Amino acid sequence: MKVLLVGASGTIGKAIIQEFAPRHEIIEAGKNHGQHQVDITNIDSVRALFSKVGKVDAIIAAAGNVHWGSFNEMTADEFRVGLNEKLMGQVNLTLVGQDFLNDGGSITLTSGSLSHDPYVGGAAFTTVNSAVDGFIRGVAVELSRDCRINSVSPNVLEESWAIYGGGVPGTTPVPAAKVALAYRKSVEGRQSGETYRVW
Amino acid sequence: MKVLLVGASGTIGKAIIQEFAPRHEIIEAGKNHGQHQVDITNIDSVRALFSKVGKVDAIIAAAGNVHWGSFNEMTADEFRVGLNEKLMGQVNLTLVGQDFLNDGGSITLTSGSLSHDPYVGGAAFTTVNSAVDGFIRGVAVELSRDCRINSVSPNVLEESWAIYGGGVPGTTPVPAAKVALAYRKSVEGRQSGETYRVW
Repeated sequence: MKVLLVGASGTIGKAIIQEFAPRHEIIEAGKNHGQHQVDITNIDSVRALFSKVGKVDAIIAAAGNVHWGSFNEMTADEFRVGLNEKLMGQVNLTLVGQDFLNDGGSITLTSGSLSHDPYVGGAAFTTVNSAVDGFIRGVAVELSRDCRINSVSPNVLEESWAIYGGGVPGTTPVPAAKVALAYRKSVEGRQSGETYRVW
Repeated sequence: MKVLLVGASGTIGKAIIQEFAPRHEIIEAGKNHGQHQVDITNIDSVRALFSKVGKVDAIIAAAGNVHWGSFNEMTADEFRVGLNEKLMGQVNLTLVGQDFLNDGGSITLTSGSLSHDPYVGGAAFTTVNSAVDGFIRGVAVELSRDCRINSVSPNVLEESWAIYGGGVPGTTPVPAAKVALAYRKSVEGRQSGETYRVW
């Protein structure tokens, strides 16, 4: 399959490449790295990406920042970072990408376990991850031509534990290679509207 | 209790007033109606509201538009309507309102059954309602002074069935008076981080 991967240079993106490379053609995109640069918060930039890449069999997004910080001290602008980047970035990719999927193609987005495992400092993550999981449920009933959409909800990665582990005491981190398998399940399987939890 | 109700003139708002009036002092706010006008999409307007109203025992939000329409024809701006109004409107109320709650006070927001019952045309609703339910899970672990936050997730109202029923075939509508009871459960109960489904 021809797979467009946005966020190819991240920890999850690299693990997806390792998992997918033996069987698929991967087109790597990212904000600053990869074959194609794209700012997913800007729908015109997303349109420009697809006009270069053309039709694909799968779109995977593993990109988008969210603000971490105490809710009592958070500003509305800080809260909006995740809505603009992780949520609307993936929504923009889906809005444009749905017309660039070959029949039977799939879109796989990224949410995260904080949706149901809230921690102090993570209110924006809990909101955005829940929104992404809702988004794929909503869009799954609208896609045509046997196209599908799912999300992968990873826990904190083992590879990132030194950076983020302090904020989520009691969590069992997961290896990125295990998270990559969930993207494979989404792309090579037949389900739609599903959130694959890797917790 | 002193209860600030935003969205007092809506169908749900009116039912909440009927349910709460015998036992509570209700301060009615809305975009165009009620004792106080507020634009919840504008955090300065929310600050101005609380500077007039002062401390309260409960904040209830039953307001905020979302765009209904085919996802294949939706623009990013149309998708953003619900994020800006129903989601960020309620986020703004919570960001400001948390400091205006008396000890043990509560915030009750509104999501909706489309979060888990998607229909063609409702992708933005499914996303926003899921985000609101996530938001209250995230904020519940951050509030102090025994303050609480919940959401009420109503199905389509019997009172609105003539307008919206055509888009959600097979749904059993619920009376607004039954939805109002869920807000009572949130305000007069002791749970936090809960979504009360009225489906």
